[in-house]
Amino acid sequence: MKIPRMTVITLGVADLARATAFYREIFATPPITQYEGVTFIPLPGVWLSLYPLEKLAEDIAEEVELPAPNTFRGFSLAYNARSKEEIMNIFSRVADAGAHIAKIPQDTFWGGFSGYFTDPDGYYWEVAWGQMFEFTEHGDLRFKA
Amino acid sequence: MKIPRMTVITLGVADLARATAFYREIFATPPITQYEGVTFIPLPGVWLSLYPLEKLAEDIAEEVELPAPNTFRGFSLAYNARSKEEIMNIFSRVADAGAHIAKIPQDTFWGGFSGYFTDPDGYYWEVAWGQMFEFTEHGDLRFKA
Repeated sequence: MKIPRMTVITLGVADLARATAFYREIFATPPITQYEGVTFIPLPGVWLSLYPLEKLAEDIAEEVELPAPNTFRGFSLAYNARSKEEIMNIFSRVADAGAHIAKIPQDTFWGGFSGYFTDPDGYYWEVAWGQMFEFTEHGDLRFKA
Repeated sequence: MKIPRMTVITLGVADLARATAFYREIFATPPITQYEGVTFIPLPGVWLSLYPLEKLAEDIAEEVELPAPNTFRGFSLAYNARSKEEIMNIFSRVADAGAHIAKIPQDTFWGGFSGYFTDPDGYYWEVAWGQMFEFTEHGDLRFKA
């Protein structure tokens, strides 16, 4: 049987209260829930969850080495915006919330507009706009036909 | 302005063809698209995208050190299944596709059932079932009322 979709992304964090406060500040009306020591942020489409890094490693059960704090983890999370103006407004908000701005939003080689910031644990977020993208009625991303 | 949701998760990979082949094998009917050197897998809810690790680091623009290959990156991706049987069927499939089984599906301390595997780059996936979860008409995860 194949996997139909993703449902949750869990970020291992150094300080659960700090990470929860940050995401509460930058996500639109997140109905944040605490459950069994996990912060669940049930965003439309896929949930973001926050869990102490050591506990996530323990849950995986095999011997894993913890990554060094605030290092690039080889991946990024992204939000595709409707306009460049929306991106600039979001960056203003996340900067106020204490995000590190890694790349000021700018034109990209692929004809879009994009910037990066990091959360308090150093996880990278891209906020991007591109004219090749549109959104389904449900708000999911899709390529323009 | 606050961020309403996530739209894409991008994994930096060592070998784009290898990673694309793996995910083609384990995802249900993924309408995979190649665009500007990126593999886009438009899953319902949030897209998964695959991009060479060095290029992802370049896109971020600031000096970042690349993580060592096949190390724990501090996060996990997850799929919430409808039943324990679905989980076992998925693990059979991903094992055939060459995934490393990090944790054989088993009962969890929170009353659920869950296992972990890694993709060819060592990114961790959890497949879990829990009686506290249900799904919206659109297929998004939610807590039972």
